[in-house]
Formats: sequence, C-alpha cells, structure tokens
Amino acid sequence: MGNATSSSRHATVNLIRKSVQRLTAYTPGEQPKARSVVKLNTNENPYPPSPRVFAALKKAAAESLRLYPNPVSQPLRERIAQLHRCRPENVFVGNGSDEVLALCARAFAERQGTIGYFEPSYSLYPVLAAIEDIKTKPVALGGDFNWRMPAGYRASLFFLTNPNAPTSLLFEKKRVRDFCRRFRGVVLIDEAYVDFARENCLDLALKMPNVLVARTLSKSYSLAGLRLGYAVGPAPLIAALHKIKDSYNVGYLSQQLALAALSDVPHMRRNVKRIVAAREKAARELRARHWDVADSNTNFLWAKPGNGTAREIFEKLRRQRIFVRYFPGPRTGRHLRITIGTDAQMKQLFKAIDA
Amino acid sequence: MGNATSSSRHATVNLIRKSVQRLTAYTPGEQPKARSVVKLNTNENPYPPSPRVFAALKKAAAESLRLYPNPVSQPLRERIAQLHRCRPENVFVGNGSDEVLALCARAFAERQGTIGYFEPSYSLYPVLAAIEDIKTKPVALGGDFNWRMPAGYRASLFFLTNPNAPTSLLFEKKRVRDFCRRFRGVVLIDEAYVDFARENCLDLALKMPNVLVARTLSKSYSLAGLRLGYAVGPAPLIAALHKIKDSYNVGYLSQQLALAALSDVPHMRRNVKRIVAAREKAARELRARHWDVADSNTNFLWAKPGNGTAREIFEKLRRQRIFVRYFPGPRTGRHLRITIGTDAQMKQLFKAIDA
Repeated sequence: MGNATSSSRHATVNLIRKSVQRLTAYTPGEQPKARSVVKLNTNENPYPPSPRVFAALKKAAAESLRLYPNPVSQPLRERIAQLHRCRPENVFVGNGSDEVLALCARAFAERQGTIGYFEPSYSLYPVLAAIEDIKTKPVALGGDFNWRMPAGYRASLFFLTNPNAPTSLLFEKKRVRDFCRRFRGVVLIDEAYVDFARENCLDLALKMPNVLVARTLSKSYSLAGLRLGYAVGPAPLIAALHKIKDSYNVGYLSQQLALAALSDVPHMRRNVKRIVAAREKAARELRARHWDVADSNTNFLWAKPGNGTAREIFEKLRRQRIFVRYFPGPRTGRHLRITIGTDAQMKQLFKAIDA
Repeated sequence: MGNATSSSRHATVNLIRKSVQRLTAYTPGEQPKARSVVKLNTNENPYPPSPRVFAALKKAAAESLRLYPNPVSQPLRERIAQLHRCRPENVFVGNGSDEVLALCARAFAERQGTIGYFEPSYSLYPVLAAIEDIKTKPVALGGDFNWRMPAGYRASLFFLTNPNAPTSLLFEKKRVRDFCRRFRGVVLIDEAYVDFARENCLDLALKMPNVLVARTLSKSYSLAGLRLGYAVGPAPLIAALHKIKDSYNVGYLSQQLALAALSDVPHMRRNVKRIVAAREKAARELRARHWDVADSNTNFLWAKPGNGTAREIFEKLRRQRIFVRYFPGPRTGRHLRITIGTDAQMKQLFKAIDA
C-alpha cells in the first residue's frame, strides 16, 4: 500500500462518520508549559488538595495497579452517598464530569431529539450534541446574562450550569426548581462550581424524577488532574449511565485518591473560604477601577474592563505571562474570565492591570 | 414531588433513550473481595509492573493534581511514537483500550452502518454497537475457532481481536493483511494480548489507510488498574478519535505512570517470558490430563476438560476459591478460560484439578 497518497488520504477521510468529519472539537483552555506563568485561565484551584490525597498517593500500592479496579467505583459511591444522604444507587462516578455529561447526551436524548443549554454557558455542550448528531435548542440568556426561558420551551435534555460559566452567576434555586417541574425532559444541573456558591440544588436531584446534579473534584477539591466527576439523581437515570459507560471507566488510583479527598471535606471548605475571600477582594478592586464585575458564585470573575477592550487587555496580560480566558463573540467578547489565584498571583494581576 | 411512585418511576424510564433501555450491559469478570482467592479469571498479570512505575508514583507531585492534565497526552504519545517508529499524529491515547474501542464505534460507523467482529470474540463489541444503536454483522469462526470470512463480506467497522479472546489463538498475519486489503471499512486490530504472541500487525496500521491497532497496558505491562490504552494508525483516523474524546480523557497520574512503564520495556519482556513459560508448562500438563488445549498466543489458556463438563469444573474450582472464567453458550460453554498466574497459583490449580 505504501504511504498515503492524496487519493488514499481522501479515501481515509471517507471512512469517518460524516457528523464527525463536520465536527469542530471543544478547545480546552491553554496549558502553558512554563511554570513561571500566572495561570488564571482554566479555573483550577490555586491551593493543593487535602494532605490525605498525598498520603493516599504515597500509600497506594503499585501492586494493586496490576488488577482491574472496581468497575462501578463502589466504595467511592458509598462515600458520596453518605455525603449527600442518599444511596449508592443514586450515584454515578465518571472519568471527570465531562464523561458524565457525554453519557447524558447518549442516554437521555434520542437521535431525533434535542439538547438544550443556555447561551453563553459551558461551550462543551454543543460539541457533545454534535458528536451524537443531535439537534441543539440553545436558549439565549437575558441582557445581564440573567435567566430567560421561552414559554413552552421543550427539549429532550437540558444542560443547566449553575452557577453558570463563564458568567459566574448563580440562578436562583426557586427558578431552577420551577423549570425542572415544568420541563418534560431530563435536566442535568452541572454544579461544577457550586462549592463556591451560596446555595445548591442537590436536593432537587433526590426529589424529582427528571433531575440529575453533576459535581466534579476539579475545582473545589483541587483535583483537575485526577479526572473525577459524579452525578447524583434518580436510580433509573443513574442505572442508564452505568449501562453505557466504559466497563472500567475510573482507575484504581483515581478511586483511592477521590476517596481520600472526600474524606476531608473541611480541607476543601477552608480552601473555598480563602478563594471566596480573594474573589470578593478582587471584585472590589476591579470595580474601583470601573470594571463591570458580575456577582460571582464561582472561583472566577466575569468582568468587563473599564478602559480598553477585553481583547486588548487579554493580550497585554498575556505578554506579561498572565493568562486569563477570553471568549471572542458578540455575547462574550466584551468580558474576561479571570480565575481566582493565590494572593500573590492576584497582586501580580493588579500590578499588570495598573501598568 | 416526593419519592418516586410506580407511575413516576415509569415516567423516569421513559426519559431514557430507547436503545439504552433495551441494552444489556457488558459483564466484567468477577472481582472477588477476598485476597486469598486464586484469581485466574480476568487475564491480569500476576507480576507487578516495572519498579519505575512505583518510583513515578512516589515521585508524582500531588501538587500537580490540581492542574488539568495535558489534554492529548502529548509526552506519552511521543514516547509511544518512538517505540513504534511513527509520529505522535499516528497515536491516540485513551482511558483504557475500552475507550479506544468505544470511540471507534462512534467515529467509523454511520447509524445506518454495520459493525462486524468474530464470534466468539471479546463480548464487549456487540455492546458497543448496541450503545450506538448500530446493527452488527458477526462472523462465526470455524469449528476449531479458526479464521473464516464469507466472500464479499462488508461492514463499516470490523473489530478483529488478534490474538483472539477467549480462544487464545493467533490469526496469521498474512490472512489479516489480505482481509484488510479487501475490506472497505475500518479494521481495528485489537492487540490486547499481542506481547504474548509470536508476531504482531502493528506495521499494517502504519501502511494501510483503513487499519488501526489498539494496545493496552493492562496485560503485559501489569497495569489493568491504571486504565491506559492506545491506538496506532493513519493520522486522519487518529484525528477523528481526538475530535470526539472527552476533553481531558487521561489523568495526570495515568500519563506519568504509563510513561514510566513504557520506558522500561525490558521489565515487561521479562514478565512476558515467565508467563509464556508457565503457559506452555500448564498447557502440557492439561494435555497430559487429556484436556483439549488451544495453541495459546496470550496470557491465558482456552481449554476443554478431558473429564467432566466445563461448568462442573468451573464450579468445583470456585468452591476451592480458584476463579477461572466460564462463558455459557453453544460456542463457548465446553471450554474454560484460565489466566496464567504465578507458579504457586498454577500449582494450586493443578492440585484442585487432580483432586
């Protein structure tokens, strides 16, 4: 056969499912290689995970790695069930909450169905719909990125990020509950940032037949590198996710380390407290500089510069090795999303902004 | 809403995609909790992974866990490319080779397409097709589980396990190459067991536009608990897998530990040598007891007892806390699949068989 010629290259492309050929993949935030960068672009936690995670890592027997892990992360599901006062049957553990979301798109929408989400929100949702070749029914948020839902809105599955990203705003629980009651499909409330918020909707997933809540250890638990997310909700929906997951979707180390992290909730709460304090301080300081800052319930700020365009400031900061996130486009292009870093990192940020 | 009544439970089930409602999930081999069991049922490696994996585990900075991992496992892909004398563009790294297989089902078959595989073979393949709601076109192997392919056979994607499981037999490379040449769709050669075999087909994936080879660190590298598999093949097919994978499909620790394992190939080869020697010895001993033993190119034996049915022996062994795998059914129900364990474990097995 020899090397691919242009005609065989053409033939190879034709071996790919058409919807995949058309697909534009999700772009994760940039991961600069240099350690000297002030990295405020991907909503990671600036503080380390619980010392128990370190201890579990040191204790983890490489010997155990030769065996297959528990296929349904049973001990971890028991711990999560205990945390949220439900049963293991109400808990699904995934390889990051991204896996949970992808499985929802495959489990809760027929091909001819529709997937809904707010705009702007987590930009992965339309990609998940496109991978499944399912039509989307996005809902544009109001002027200040506040709740807006057309009367009689229907879809098979609605991804509701709460608090929302990149806007940092929390939708009121009453609104969410009312929507879930009226909505005929499944609502996946993506609570990736909820530990930084003043309230959460977990009880809705334990009371209503069509609601799932997704959580992640990536943000509040400082474990983005581990890939551990979970969903809580009605047993029949959880069972559907189990049916279609990969046989061993979460490795042995991830299960062990997540168990350690979730057995030290106070450590997480202390880190969250520091980040929330730094967030409030940064919001005040930006407002003092005439930035328009949304009322954040997350570990980042969504802010419109007082002077200069968002893009200009994004690029200026970047040249000074300070990475924040900029989303071009008519709805998001006037704002920057700034992850809350350590106090020292925030000082560097303000020094650069003032320069 | 209160707790789910039988009518709301009915409503909840209706929220699930019909193909998923119908689906019977893949059943992984039993993972007994007791450590005292002689576990010869899931084709794990009885020997520990490379000491470099231990070292990497001890060295792994829990600090790095707070950051997102490299989204495309770049350093690991570079190492794999070096091993197989290809480019990183020819390598996809997945959360276990199960993820690689699942992505192939989504990338290389249209909904109205078909997915093929031999019968018997890895029982996950029909499940992957069912999850995608794609029709299957299984091909029954010949009497002694040897190669048999109907003239003019067509499918969108063919999963070809080589060496095959649970039969342990290697299909000749010439046959595989001829089939790949004639076949119009994508051939995924699943080489999970190939390090225990006398030859491999990796070069086909680097020469032919429609061939991918999947490998795993679960068997020969003793890392089933890590969840690390990869595919090698033409860049356009590899790029399609990257488009539809989860954004961060492989965690930081998995990338680090896999890198350590793949930088110690001699350790793997030494373990493989011991297992192959034990396999040949066990095959001789079973044949001496009038068992019909296939010519294994894997880390397990596929064997038909000389006296008593496979099911009886399976159950007798189980009562003595020796776990082997039994697949009921007309094609497979007369055989047992016995993973090669340590010499001590094999002695226990034969003691039990002779009792």
